[in-house]
Amino acid sequence: MHLLITSGPTREPIDSVRYISNRSSGRLGAELAAHAAEAGHLVTLLLGPGAMEPPEHVNLTVVPFTSTADLQALLAEHFPRHDALVMAAAVADYTPKQLIEGKTERGQGLTIELVPTPDLVAGLAPTKRDDQRIIAFALEEPANLERRAVEKMQRKRVDAIVANPLVTMDADAIEPVLFTRGGERFAPGRMSKAVFARWLVERIGALFSG
Amino acid sequence: MHLLITSGPTREPIDSVRYISNRSSGRLGAELAAHAAEAGHLVTLLLGPGAMEPPEHVNLTVVPFTSTADLQALLAEHFPRHDALVMAAAVADYTPKQLIEGKTERGQGLTIELVPTPDLVAGLAPTKRDDQRIIAFALEEPANLERRAVEKMQRKRVDAIVANPLVTMDADAIEPVLFTRGGERFAPGRMSKAVFARWLVERIGALFSG
Repeated sequence: MHLLITSGPTREPIDSVRYISNRSSGRLGAELAAHAAEAGHLVTLLLGPGAMEPPEHVNLTVVPFTSTADLQALLAEHFPRHDALVMAAAVADYTPKQLIEGKTERGQGLTIELVPTPDLVAGLAPTKRDDQRIIAFALEEPANLERRAVEKMQRKRVDAIVANPLVTMDADAIEPVLFTRGGERFAPGRMSKAVFARWLVERIGALFSG
Repeated sequence: MHLLITSGPTREPIDSVRYISNRSSGRLGAELAAHAAEAGHLVTLLLGPGAMEPPEHVNLTVVPFTSTADLQALLAEHFPRHDALVMAAAVADYTPKQLIEGKTERGQGLTIELVPTPDLVAGLAPTKRDDQRIIAFALEEPANLERRAVEKMQRKRVDAIVANPLVTMDADAIEPVLFTRGGERFAPGRMSKAVFARWLVERIGALFSG
């Protein structure tokens, strides 16, 4: 398969030196890209700033991004040439309404107005061909984790979603539950991100290839 | 000398996953720590999140920090045991007024109120013994760079200040001007951060040791 994988955080600029970001390490995306390339898939990895890089591989192309807006443009460009998108990046939900020019000085206080970013996955879903698949991630509080993940899968019109408790971010291990639009539920238990990456690459192949 | 060097950005938490930070790479602090250790100084490096790490060295101890508040506590603990502080970290000028519990969901909009962080260097200066020195950095817009740097040196009551134009952040090269309280001005010209680090370690030794 031609797999498009996104990984890492976005950075939303406040002024010329400051930004808002999140604690995503990019470990999971790097593991997914590495194992998918090893398994013979042709992989394009859209890689966020400061995120972990996978080892070089002949099947792997890495394209860097910084902000949510950058990633949106790259998805529009690359998605049509791929069979599936695995949206492991931790995209910012909010971005500053206005970019402050230069560098603000320390003063009495500062209020930053944030506006919601576009929902990249929900925006891509209507452009999806019948032969394409989107696998999203839902990072949620533990309460109602599975219900919220299934709601997200349906609202965003994606083909599968991986539900993770919040503590997963920046951690070495993961305790994922994979839901598909076909109504399947896979709960492989707690595992390292390296093992999860192999497992998910196999599941994507089994569920969606050919 | 016993040198205390700070390096890299701080991260100021917005909620359990998001933070405000800046584009500091930590390259300069890593170079300073490496060259000072090689030159025979005993170095403690307070290292910000995601910042570049210097190679291991028997003369070098690395202590990580995350937020401005963390760094403030570490400075209070470590400064008394050192002859000089080199404040190369890009400390946040603002931090969110309140930490939001959990993870905020993407909604209609969000306003974050920021309050100024304590000025760590200005706070340390009054605790300084006569045998101790503080070297600060001023990252400024190019207009009035030198005047603003000298004002900062006097207001913060530090012993020397390195004035840098804003474009230095996250760049490989630097075009620094070093001012001392004694009224000296050193302008070595444009150079790589590696060469600047060697130059500054030598200057600190010449100006302030023994």
